[in-house]
Amino acid sequence: MSKVLITTVPFGDKNRLPLEFLEDAGIEYLINPLGRKLKEDELAEMVSDFDVVVAGTEPITEKVMSQASRLKLISRVGIGLDSVDLLAAERYGIKVSYTPDAPAPAVAELTIGLMLSLLRSVHLSNTQMHRGEWHRYFGRRIPEVTIGIIGAGRIGGRVIRRLSAFGTPRILVNDMNPDLSITTDLKLEWVGKEDIYQQADVISLHVPLTVHTKNMVRREQLLQIKPDAMLINTSRGGIINENDLAEVLKAGHLGGAAIDVFEQEPYHGGLAEIDRCLLTSHMGSMSIDCRTRMEIEATEEAVRFLKGHDLQGLVPSEEYEVQKQGL
Amino acid sequence: MSKVLITTVPFGDKNRLPLEFLEDAGIEYLINPLGRKLKEDELAEMVSDFDVVVAGTEPITEKVMSQASRLKLISRVGIGLDSVDLLAAERYGIKVSYTPDAPAPAVAELTIGLMLSLLRSVHLSNTQMHRGEWHRYFGRRIPEVTIGIIGAGRIGGRVIRRLSAFGTPRILVNDMNPDLSITTDLKLEWVGKEDIYQQADVISLHVPLTVHTKNMVRREQLLQIKPDAMLINTSRGGIINENDLAEVLKAGHLGGAAIDVFEQEPYHGGLAEIDRCLLTSHMGSMSIDCRTRMEIEATEEAVRFLKGHDLQGLVPSEEYEVQKQGL
Repeated sequence: MSKVLITTVPFGDKNRLPLEFLEDAGIEYLINPLGRKLKEDELAEMVSDFDVVVAGTEPITEKVMSQASRLKLISRVGIGLDSVDLLAAERYGIKVSYTPDAPAPAVAELTIGLMLSLLRSVHLSNTQMHRGEWHRYFGRRIPEVTIGIIGAGRIGGRVIRRLSAFGTPRILVNDMNPDLSITTDLKLEWVGKEDIYQQADVISLHVPLTVHTKNMVRREQLLQIKPDAMLINTSRGGIINENDLAEVLKAGHLGGAAIDVFEQEPYHGGLAEIDRCLLTSHMGSMSIDCRTRMEIEATEEAVRFLKGHDLQGLVPSEEYEVQKQGL
Repeated sequence: MSKVLITTVPFGDKNRLPLEFLEDAGIEYLINPLGRKLKEDELAEMVSDFDVVVAGTEPITEKVMSQASRLKLISRVGIGLDSVDLLAAERYGIKVSYTPDAPAPAVAELTIGLMLSLLRSVHLSNTQMHRGEWHRYFGRRIPEVTIGIIGAGRIGGRVIRRLSAFGTPRILVNDMNPDLSITTDLKLEWVGKEDIYQQADVISLHVPLTVHTKNMVRREQLLQIKPDAMLINTSRGGIINENDLAEVLKAGHLGGAAIDVFEQEPYHGGLAEIDRCLLTSHMGSMSIDCRTRMEIEATEEAVRFLKGHDLQGLVPSEEYEVQKQGL
């Protein structure tokens, strides 16, 4: 009998539909009994008996695959593939699917929310009000600032479109794809990353974690950013060097930062000591509707595979190419 | 020599232009030396020597005016007139001007920021992350919820227009002006306040404080609101009964609230004990550009008056009518 391991948690929590798909198809499943993101060894120990993994962001490495003699499909709930060794999967004959569109609206909306909080010091005021302190912060409105978007794909493009309702900010955009086009009424300036570091008042990252973006924003880049500018990361941990960020913030550089993603999750690091660093717990895709859509798409792919139907969410060859350049 | 008392603080802080207007016109001024919102008695004591007050939200009552033998103009920095006894001003022959348009974009933008924070539990996650706790909250996106706007004038209308960039939420609108029209692509449902309390997932208040709106949202109304719905007030303290709100939140009712304005400011009350109540310190109009515009407009009005030119921001007669019904 076919068996599916669901590693990402929570799963089927707000909407049981994905679990019902499996049940209706007579597919046995196990939901990650540890209730948190698995470490490599834990997953390696758990995976041996399963045909499909419906996966979160836990490391699915060569070591894990070497213990997974029955594994034939990794169906990622979400878009990022930094956690999956695609080249090892190819060698082991394991297919990999993902749900690249489902999380984008939720991540874009959270990003705008974080941007507005940073610009108006909502997080600082809330912390102080709850301590009994009253301090009125001056802020800036979106149309008054220069916004830098690094990575203008599914999520970055949506962030830009949502900004248009707030007026006409100056928007600087950088993407590694020079042919990218974004439908918007706003005038976009396509520039280099350095220009964004040096000119933007708010910088938001929307790139995947790859060999090119790992540690992309470290001490050197942070110090290029304007002293009162703000930095947002809702993409992947590891793209901004967290220790460098904590250090420059503690030294008084930058107006603030909003960080949703971390190298190690759950995060327990130095950024938590800094009031003007707004922290959220990897909640970009955590809107009920997007999360449900991601879970349904990933589960449908598992059912399709186990019934021998054509897959619809296979990861394209470009993603394998990216990993061939190193991960 | 003409003298202007500037009671609202901070003033001229981010941009000295309004102070330069006064200096260039040879007008002497004093900025509130207490550096915080004045109480009635403090203002009464301070005001006797001045021809114009460039005013914040401190109480400008009959008692204050009775001590202000030279006072001929109250020039409000902002829109709300609940702090000014217009009928007493009329009796004392004191003109009243205001800057009704200047704060609207900043208040609308903060409101959207608070809405996104509430919907995604950003404030809760930030508080917990800074305590070393990791909890991933499910949230909802704007197009997935029903949003109720009470008061659809300068600010409420702008909130609605900004929502359109996020998709097509169901929007319920209530305004005491039945002829109000709002230019937006979104389909608006004009309903009674009761319908908003009972049906909306997010309720945002954009009404002035008057005899009709004082205590408008008290225990009775709060209990009509859906148990997981959220309430935002960036208009005026006193419209929501703070004690009732703290009580129902403590009892587990409502998904959260975001409160920027309070009956007594600085605020030190029970809402500060409730993590899911997002609190900010009356920062709606506190964007540098809007605040500067408000200060410039209110100061220009003072200069116009003292030079004998026509006033441009006189409060219209409707506002006096409202106060005739009681304050």
